[in-house]
Amino acid sequence: MTDLPLEMPEPEPSSGGTSDVPVAFEDPTYLAAVVDLLGAIAYGEMSAFERLAEDAKMAPNLEDKAELAVMASRELNHFIGLKDRLAELGADPFEAMKPFQTPIDAFHVHTAPRDWLEGLVKAYVGDGLAADFYREVAAFVDAGTRELIIDSLEDSGQAEFVVDRVRKAIEADHRVGGRLALWGRRLMGEALSQAQRVAAERDALSALLSGGVDRPGMDLAAIGRMFTRLTENHAQRMAALGLAA
Amino acid sequence: MTDLPLEMPEPEPSSGGTSDVPVAFEDPTYLAAVVDLLGAIAYGEMSAFERLAEDAKMAPNLEDKAELAVMASRELNHFIGLKDRLAELGADPFEAMKPFQTPIDAFHVHTAPRDWLEGLVKAYVGDGLAADFYREVAAFVDAGTRELIIDSLEDSGQAEFVVDRVRKAIEADHRVGGRLALWGRRLMGEALSQAQRVAAERDALSALLSGGVDRPGMDLAAIGRMFTRLTENHAQRMAALGLAA
Repeated sequence: MTDLPLEMPEPEPSSGGTSDVPVAFEDPTYLAAVVDLLGAIAYGEMSAFERLAEDAKMAPNLEDKAELAVMASRELNHFIGLKDRLAELGADPFEAMKPFQTPIDAFHVHTAPRDWLEGLVKAYVGDGLAADFYREVAAFVDAGTRELIIDSLEDSGQAEFVVDRVRKAIEADHRVGGRLALWGRRLMGEALSQAQRVAAERDALSALLSGGVDRPGMDLAAIGRMFTRLTENHAQRMAALGLAA
Repeated sequence: MTDLPLEMPEPEPSSGGTSDVPVAFEDPTYLAAVVDLLGAIAYGEMSAFERLAEDAKMAPNLEDKAELAVMASRELNHFIGLKDRLAELGADPFEAMKPFQTPIDAFHVHTAPRDWLEGLVKAYVGDGLAADFYREVAAFVDAGTRELIIDSLEDSGQAEFVVDRVRKAIEADHRVGGRLALWGRRLMGEALSQAQRVAAERDALSALLSGGVDRPGMDLAAIGRMFTRLTENHAQRMAALGLAA
């Protein structure tokens, strides 16, 4: 809990902008894309908080409940850093989050865990996937924004705890492994489907990925390679849990 | 959010105990009382987290939801400090919390808010009352424990936000004030009833209040004065909200 990303990263040297906003933000399309990106991550963190707090209720004991509650509150600490950065950029943080409320809420409605173990797998696999994706996108933004995003996405302590609990449950009952493997695939499918929806609707965000006259972007082949990396990382996380991807 | 009470207070000079546990803890009755007290507060913080996270769902907008989520995650940060201190004292933190699970859960079941405003009043009035009570008890413990308790009980940001929202709601519809005044009285009644239950069941905790051969305690008159202070502070909080106590 000493990892609060509440101190803003050092601003880049700026030739014409205000002191804490890098010159890249003078391009309104770029600014809109970064506001979109931070808004998406911020809303994602807030709903991760809500979902972890909700799933904590299913914990088999007080200790496991506390683990999930601590994870939830770390997501919220990340949320605060993103919200503050949005305000610094002159955006209304809650307006910035709004476009992502529907797709992210839909993801959670379609992947509501039916029990404690499904909740744990979702915390680990779902957050891992989202973090990988945002890290890929972060490659296309200025250093200050990138650093904030990467800080916000650090593992909130899920990994070790979730791996331990899921592996023990599979040891105790092998059928659990089959059920949770299916669940992991469903999480991946839902995430891709909502990501596609966002890409189709948010022009500024898509433009960020495809680049501009003065910014490198991704061509179709590069987007293909990105999906390969996301899929490989997902498979590794499933394997860490003892599950077939 | 720079107020994490995760650094332990300086230990008191100790003549015979270990380096980070003051000499007072050599008295097993005293140690049991402090473990009880910290266990009660820790479980209270965890269930405050759960309740605030739950009530956040009723928020009328994203911004108010975030306010409640931030409060929830501060309660959890306090929880972590108390849990670590219990472990330092050689206690199992979750065993220490267990005796308080039933009365604190019962309090929350009997005072489940029916809407957003009841949730806000509960966050402010309920937590204020609990904080006042624990601060009274903290007067009877060693300086290190007292400092940790007082840090854990600081206002988690409720006051200003809740007062603003409740006052605005009463302005908009005066009938709201009557309903919430009744609600505040009910919170006070339930809190007293559960506190009485704890006092009757936890001998070490009651012994702490009544003192020992080498420790000052409260006589009946002093307990009466304490209740007067608690009631007066409650009435002040109700008045701040614009409600009749």
